[in-house]
Amino acid sequence: MTRPAPPDDPTRSAALARLDAHYRGMPPVAALRMAIDGYDGDALRLSAPLSAHVNDKGCAFGGSLGSLLTLAGWGLVQLRLEAAGIDADIFVADSRVRFRAPLHDDLLAVARLADPAAWSGFIAALAARGRGRIQVEGVVPLADGGEAATLDASFAAIVR
Amino acid sequence: MTRPAPPDDPTRSAALARLDAHYRGMPPVAALRMAIDGYDGDALRLSAPLSAHVNDKGCAFGGSLGSLLTLAGWGLVQLRLEAAGIDADIFVADSRVRFRAPLHDDLLAVARLADPAAWSGFIAALAARGRGRIQVEGVVPLADGGEAATLDASFAAIVR
Repeated sequence: MTRPAPPDDPTRSAALARLDAHYRGMPPVAALRMAIDGYDGDALRLSAPLSAHVNDKGCAFGGSLGSLLTLAGWGLVQLRLEAAGIDADIFVADSRVRFRAPLHDDLLAVARLADPAAWSGFIAALAARGRGRIQVEGVVPLADGGEAATLDASFAAIVR
Repeated sequence: MTRPAPPDDPTRSAALARLDAHYRGMPPVAALRMAIDGYDGDALRLSAPLSAHVNDKGCAFGGSLGSLLTLAGWGLVQLRLEAAGIDADIFVADSRVRFRAPLHDDLLAVARLADPAAWSGFIAALAARGRGRIQVEGVVPLADGGEAATLDASFAAIVR
């Protein structure tokens, strides 16, 4: 389920509904039982229940954290490109996940641009060559303020 | 399903059956619809149907490739530790996945030790301090001999 956007932002609400439908159209993503938890224009938040992602040690499976982080990064680039009026296929090119502490709660993954100043160069590359790359960083926070996992990822976009 | 081991290797066959049960006991792994494709003592192979992992572009979802590679690495360390008579919890500590080409076929992930000579030091660390780390490398091969994705990962083990 998508958390409702503020009533004064129908454009963003519609964009999140499209992203949600996009996610749900992919069988492996539907299997994650994830939801869009929020988007403020900078950070995209995805959540998923621990019960669907518990490993043999009773905490969250590392592969699930990696998938949720990757999807948050992918969705962030998708939302920002759509807002810029660019229709592109987006692929994860490189992802590094560091697992820092076990997570015993529901999963939350938060993704943002690693360097917001790099966005204009990404858009310029897409306009000039039809393809470009952008770095995204992500985190799965712990309830106590620590981090269960962090992501450093590169996404490639190819204009359709 | 586990591919039957050769009839002359009942120990390995039993170990693969235990690993298979271990995988299936984890809800997020069961959702991947994966299977143990083989183990020769050096490389563990896991497979999964493309239909369960297809993304919005008709090829394999990057997060699924990362999960399958991570599970292959985890299973490899599990099998080798069990063969060494060591009962330990195994965690992925750090994983880097490079996505090199789209995969339009069923998924296969193959994991082996990055440096087989490092194994004895890993076992020594577990014996001396009850914990240790080992590097694993993995690949999702393409039918044409290329690579869809590669993994460089570090796994931590803590003796139970």
